[in-house]
Amino acid sequence: MFEKIALIGIGLIGASVSHGIRRAHLAKSIAVSTRREATLAAAKRLGLGDNYAIDPADAVRGADLVLISAPVMAYEAIMHQISSSLEAGAILSDVGSVKRHAHNMLGKNLPDNVHLVPGHPIAGTEQSGPSAGFAELFDNRWCVLTPHENVDRGAVDKMTAFWRALGSNVELMDADHHDRVLAITSHLPHLIAYNIVGTVADLETDTQSEVVKFSASGFRDFTRIAASDPVMWRDVFLTNRVAVLEMMDRFLADLTKLQAAVKSGDGVALEAMFKRTRDIRRSIIDAGQETAEADFGRPHGKDM
Amino acid sequence: MFEKIALIGIGLIGASVSHGIRRAHLAKSIAVSTRREATLAAAKRLGLGDNYAIDPADAVRGADLVLISAPVMAYEAIMHQISSSLEAGAILSDVGSVKRHAHNMLGKNLPDNVHLVPGHPIAGTEQSGPSAGFAELFDNRWCVLTPHENVDRGAVDKMTAFWRALGSNVELMDADHHDRVLAITSHLPHLIAYNIVGTVADLETDTQSEVVKFSASGFRDFTRIAASDPVMWRDVFLTNRVAVLEMMDRFLADLTKLQAAVKSGDGVALEAMFKRTRDIRRSIIDAGQETAEADFGRPHGKDM
Repeated sequence: MFEKIALIGIGLIGASVSHGIRRAHLAKSIAVSTRREATLAAAKRLGLGDNYAIDPADAVRGADLVLISAPVMAYEAIMHQISSSLEAGAILSDVGSVKRHAHNMLGKNLPDNVHLVPGHPIAGTEQSGPSAGFAELFDNRWCVLTPHENVDRGAVDKMTAFWRALGSNVELMDADHHDRVLAITSHLPHLIAYNIVGTVADLETDTQSEVVKFSASGFRDFTRIAASDPVMWRDVFLTNRVAVLEMMDRFLADLTKLQAAVKSGDGVALEAMFKRTRDIRRSIIDAGQETAEADFGRPHGKDM
Repeated sequence: MFEKIALIGIGLIGASVSHGIRRAHLAKSIAVSTRREATLAAAKRLGLGDNYAIDPADAVRGADLVLISAPVMAYEAIMHQISSSLEAGAILSDVGSVKRHAHNMLGKNLPDNVHLVPGHPIAGTEQSGPSAGFAELFDNRWCVLTPHENVDRGAVDKMTAFWRALGSNVELMDADHHDRVLAITSHLPHLIAYNIVGTVADLETDTQSEVVKFSASGFRDFTRIAASDPVMWRDVFLTNRVAVLEMMDRFLADLTKLQAAVKSGDGVALEAMFKRTRDIRRSIIDAGQETAEADFGRPHGKDM
């Protein structure tokens, strides 16, 4: 599908893309570039590329696809480094969680003959770094592409085929719409999880150790996404501020109602609120986006 | 260990206890009682007892252990039905999430010669009903017992041995302390999860279907505990109000700080807050209360 793919950034997502490219034979060669020596050495040990460079300009030379998988606040600096080395006719894409920002930063110094097709695979785990990657990460997940309407149709089709070959379903969407939808499906849940785990981190040591012990009663679920990469998430909140704050306002308004129901002991209201939430999980399972097994299929008993 | 155990209520926990009793041969016979005909019929089909009764008084006659596994607001009515039928020397226990309330309700009409040892196994899944039960649910989890200091020591030792035989670790604790710890480990997380899933339930249909599609980006984690039994949770919030509201106040104070950091674009503060939460997950994994596998061990790729 491609001659040479340059992966700029090689954490969980970049590494998983590399495994997926190999699994489906989507490129003759993969060039890996990342800012830190130690990460590049790890990528080398894992065999994630055919060649490796600290300077992203070296990686993009001769590449017909350049895929940026770095925290979104790094895009401006990366673009500064690579823009004059991008090949004519190449596709420039990314996997970042905030698409308006991707358009702004990657579109700024974009050569006329390079096709910008920003993307966002809706997949991940709480683990980070090149060793966390695996080819199956994108299977049956969605990947959202947010190209400008006037971008080359062939480039968009090629990126659609690329993500399909990685196992994903593909949806085209306006960047602003993407950022609003992800604010509620992803950004607010992460903020809330970070917040509740942070609240626990502030408890006295005694209570904290009891929280750890008794975490199977609910709390541990939140610790998973609150264990996600701090820099990546800092950048999400800095670049999708408006949509996140809007969703947080809605969440807080609902929580105020729930708080009032607890305060006044309004059992009828509480039961009604708790009853309407089961259906959504059922829909997610039916949509193939969640396991139907109890407790996420966590091991129990001897398998633990 | 016991001659006859009466299980009053036969949902996820009651059914799992039944399987666990059978697995470890802890009683000569099990009597099952539950309020609804359909649930009792399901328990019968599943073979969860040796005899079955709608009237809990029938079940407790001759039982040396009576274990209540019903929503906590039902305790008063159950006690009214069974108190005069409890055997001399029997142990009365429960599995409810709010222990001060358990003491108040089960202690009220308690015959002098019955030993009250309230308990709370810190285990569960999002599924409910007798068919959701399985013997391994309590393996390597904690069970908290909150007996009064003046209760018969032999009865407390026997309940400790009982939960150990079901696979659990046992801890003795003051009822009020239990209710405060569980407010943060369990009750607040459930309230927050119900709330965020409720916020999504209020979105327009278009956005809601996108949330379902893209839920793997974080949201779906919250839908698990928000799919828990509505009546059980209504009762928890009605009976542990003070501790829940106190923890909610802490959570809201922290969220206000986080909101301010997002508003002002304070990347340093955000990164600092997001960095201190990873360690807590690590502690939970080290304590054997969570799987070390990525993504809770959810299936990926072909296993999905």
